[in-house]
Amino acid sequence: MNILEIIEKKRDKKELTKEEMEYFIQEYTKGKIADYQAAALIMGIYINGMTDKELVNLTMAMANSGDIIDLSKIDGIIVDKHSTGGVGDKVSIILLPLVSSVGVKVAKMSGRGLGFTGGTVDKLESIPGYKTNIPEEEFIKNVNEIGISMISQTANIAPADKKIYSLRDAISCVESIPLIASSIMSKKIASGAAKIVLEVTYGKGAFMKTVEEAKKLAEEMVKIGNLANRETRYILTSMDEPLGYAIGNNLEIKEAVQFLKGEIEPKDLKEVVLELGAHMIKLAGLGENLEENKKIMLENIKNGKAYNKFVEMVKRQGGDISYLENLEKFEKSKYEIDILSEKTGKIKEVKADVIAKYVCNLGAGRIRKEDNIDMTVGMILNKKVGDVVTKGEKIATIHTNKATEKIKPEDIGIII
Amino acid sequence: MNILEIIEKKRDKKELTKEEMEYFIQEYTKGKIADYQAAALIMGIYINGMTDKELVNLTMAMANSGDIIDLSKIDGIIVDKHSTGGVGDKVSIILLPLVSSVGVKVAKMSGRGLGFTGGTVDKLESIPGYKTNIPEEEFIKNVNEIGISMISQTANIAPADKKIYSLRDAISCVESIPLIASSIMSKKIASGAAKIVLEVTYGKGAFMKTVEEAKKLAEEMVKIGNLANRETRYILTSMDEPLGYAIGNNLEIKEAVQFLKGEIEPKDLKEVVLELGAHMIKLAGLGENLEENKKIMLENIKNGKAYNKFVEMVKRQGGDISYLENLEKFEKSKYEIDILSEKTGKIKEVKADVIAKYVCNLGAGRIRKEDNIDMTVGMILNKKVGDVVTKGEKIATIHTNKATEKIKPEDIGIII
Repeated sequence: MNILEIIEKKRDKKELTKEEMEYFIQEYTKGKIADYQAAALIMGIYINGMTDKELVNLTMAMANSGDIIDLSKIDGIIVDKHSTGGVGDKVSIILLPLVSSVGVKVAKMSGRGLGFTGGTVDKLESIPGYKTNIPEEEFIKNVNEIGISMISQTANIAPADKKIYSLRDAISCVESIPLIASSIMSKKIASGAAKIVLEVTYGKGAFMKTVEEAKKLAEEMVKIGNLANRETRYILTSMDEPLGYAIGNNLEIKEAVQFLKGEIEPKDLKEVVLELGAHMIKLAGLGENLEENKKIMLENIKNGKAYNKFVEMVKRQGGDISYLENLEKFEKSKYEIDILSEKTGKIKEVKADVIAKYVCNLGAGRIRKEDNIDMTVGMILNKKVGDVVTKGEKIATIHTNKATEKIKPEDIGIII
Repeated sequence: MNILEIIEKKRDKKELTKEEMEYFIQEYTKGKIADYQAAALIMGIYINGMTDKELVNLTMAMANSGDIIDLSKIDGIIVDKHSTGGVGDKVSIILLPLVSSVGVKVAKMSGRGLGFTGGTVDKLESIPGYKTNIPEEEFIKNVNEIGISMISQTANIAPADKKIYSLRDAISCVESIPLIASSIMSKKIASGAAKIVLEVTYGKGAFMKTVEEAKKLAEEMVKIGNLANRETRYILTSMDEPLGYAIGNNLEIKEAVQFLKGEIEPKDLKEVVLELGAHMIKLAGLGENLEENKKIMLENIKNGKAYNKFVEMVKRQGGDISYLENLEKFEKSKYEIDILSEKTGKIKEVKADVIAKYVCNLGAGRIRKEDNIDMTVGMILNKKVGDVVTKGEKIATIHTNKATEKIKPEDIGIII
C-alpha cells in the first residue's frame, strides 16, 4: 500500500478500503505523507465524494488518531450534544444543567471559540473562579457525584482532523458536507459518548446557508453515528438572527442564568433548548415521549431544580456563585451605547453574520487562536425580527470598551 | 485574485481566466503558492478537465515562466520536431540532417534522457569531440551558415513546467492528457519554433498505451499549437518494439549514420523518418506534396547529400568525423553476448519496455539526473516481430561491460 495508489484510486472514483483510509490518516498524522499528497487526495474526495463505507472509515480513522476518552467509569448512559454553532449560542449553558436536573448524566468537554464570540468554555470562564481545566478523574468524579461537569477539551482529540481541517482551509476544501460530517463526528466519537444529539444550524449566521444543506449534513452525521454504533439524532435550527437577546461572553451567561431561573424565556432559545433536551432525555432512556420530556424540563425551570443544578456545578468547579445570585456583580464594559431606530416600522432582518463580526471586532471573540477574549463586550438586542419599533426607540445596546461614534441600526445588520 | 478563489473555481468546474492561470503559474514558480495548494488545483484540473481556452492559457503561462528562445535572427521558417519518445529512438539524428539537406532550417535544442537510454544530446556526444553546449550566438550562426545545428538545452525553458511535472509525479496526476499536452507544448513554444511536427508514440514502449490515447494527446497538442499561433502537425507511431535494430547510445549513432549513408533502411525507422520529414518540408514551405517530399528525401540519401549534411554539422561542432567515415572506430563494450533462439518459430513480441529497462540497467540510461551514461552498452537486434528464427539462430547481441550469465530471449522481452 502506498499513498500514490490511494490518490490514484480516489482520483478515478474507486472506493478506498478501510485499510487504505487508516494508512492515509495514520501516516499523514505522523508526517510521513506530505501535505501536497494529502491535498491532492482531499481534493479528489471533495470532487468525487465518498461512499458510506469510506465516510465511516475516514471518520473512525480520524477518531482513532489521538486520545479516546473513556467514560465507562460513569454510571448511566452518556448523551453528548453538539451544535454546528450560531451567534448568541448559549444553549449548552442552559440545556445541560436542565437535562441534568431531569437525571441525564452530563460529561461535557467543550472547545474554545474562533471567529464569532467565545465558545461555551470561554463563556463559563466569565464566572469568576470557574475552573474548566480540571483533571479527567475529577471530571468523572463530579459527573458520578452530582450528575454534571462541563470542562474544556485538553486531551489530544482527533489530531488528524485538526491537521486535515487546517489543510482544507488552505486549499478551498472546507465546504464539503462529507468532510464536515466526518470532521465533527470524529471528535464526537473520540469524546466517548455512546449517544449523540446534534443541532445543525442554517442561515446567515451559520455555516450551512440553507435548510436543505443543513439537513444533508445532519443526515450524513446520523449515518456515520449509526454505522459507528453511536445512536444519533438531530434537530435543525434557523440561525438568520442571533439566538436570544444577548451576544457576548458574560452577557450570554447572564441571559442563560436568567433563563434557568425562569425569569425570561426568549422564544427561539426556548425552542432549541426544549427540542435538544427532549431528545437527550429520550436517548438517555429517561422518557420516550418528547412532548412529555419538554413539560418536565419546563417544570424543572419553574421549581428551581435546573438553576440549582447549575449552581451546584459552578460551586463544585470553583466558581463564585454570588455572581449567579446577583447578576449585577458581573464586570461591565466601559461604555454602553444605545442604538435607536431612525424610523417606525417592523424589524425585517437582524443579520447574525454582521453582528458576529461586529462583536468579534469589539473583542468578544478571537481572530487568532492565541487572542485574548474580552468577557464584558457584546450586544443586547431589544428587538428581534418581526417586532415593531417606533422612531427613536431603542433597538439594541452595544457594550464596548472603545469609545465609538454614533452607530446606525444598519451598521450592525439590523434592517427595518 | 488569490489562489483560494482559483482552486475553488476549478473545484466547482468553472473556467479559469487567462489572468488566473498566469497568476497561478507565476506565483507558484516564485514559490509564493504552496505545493499543497498547487496539488489541490492540479487534482481539480485532472478530474474536472480544462476548456480549450484554459489549456492554451496554462500552456502559454508555463512557456512564459522562463527564457523564450529568440530564433528571429535565423532566415527562413524554423520547424521544430518533437517525439513523445520511444526505445531505440534515433529519429532526430537521421531526420534533421536529412530535411536540412532538402533546405529546411534546423535549429534543434534537445534534452538529455531519463529512464530508457540517453536522449539525442547524449547520443550525439558519443561522437568524440562533438560539442552540444555551444553558446546561443554560435548556434544561430551555424544554422544561418550551414542550415543546421543540434545542441543541448541549456536555457531555463519553462521552469513552471518542471516544477509542476515533479509535483504531478508525487500526487498521481501524471496520466492526464491535457496536462501532458500543455507540458510538452509549453517547452516547444518557449523553444522558439514557428511550426511544429509531433510524433506521438503508443504501445508497450511508449507513455500512451493505445492508439486512441495517442491520437487524443496529439489532437490536444495540435489544438494548443494552433491556438497559440504555431502551425502544428502530428503523426502516430506504434512503439511496441524498439525502433530499428540498435538500442544504446553509440550503437544508435552507428545505425543512424548507416541509415544516412544509405547502407541500411529498417522499415519502421524509415517510415517514421519519411513521415515526419515530409511534414517538416511541407510546413517549411518547401514542398506541398507529402509523397513528393518523401521521394526527395530518399534521393538525398542515395546521392549522399543527407550524410554530407550530417558530416558538415558534426565537423562544425567539433566532432571527429573520422568516426563517421569508419564506424569501427567507435569505442566498444567489453563483452558481446549473443542471444540464441531456443526454438524454431516466428517472433511474436519484442517488448520495448522490457528492453528499455534492461539496457538502462546495463548503464545506457540514467536512473537519476546526475548519473553518468555508458556510451558503449546496449543491444543489437537481429530479428524483429514477424521474423522467422530457427533453433540456435542469433536473435540479438547484448553489448555490456559487466560479465553476465547466459541470457534467454524472454529475459529481454523477446517472445517466440
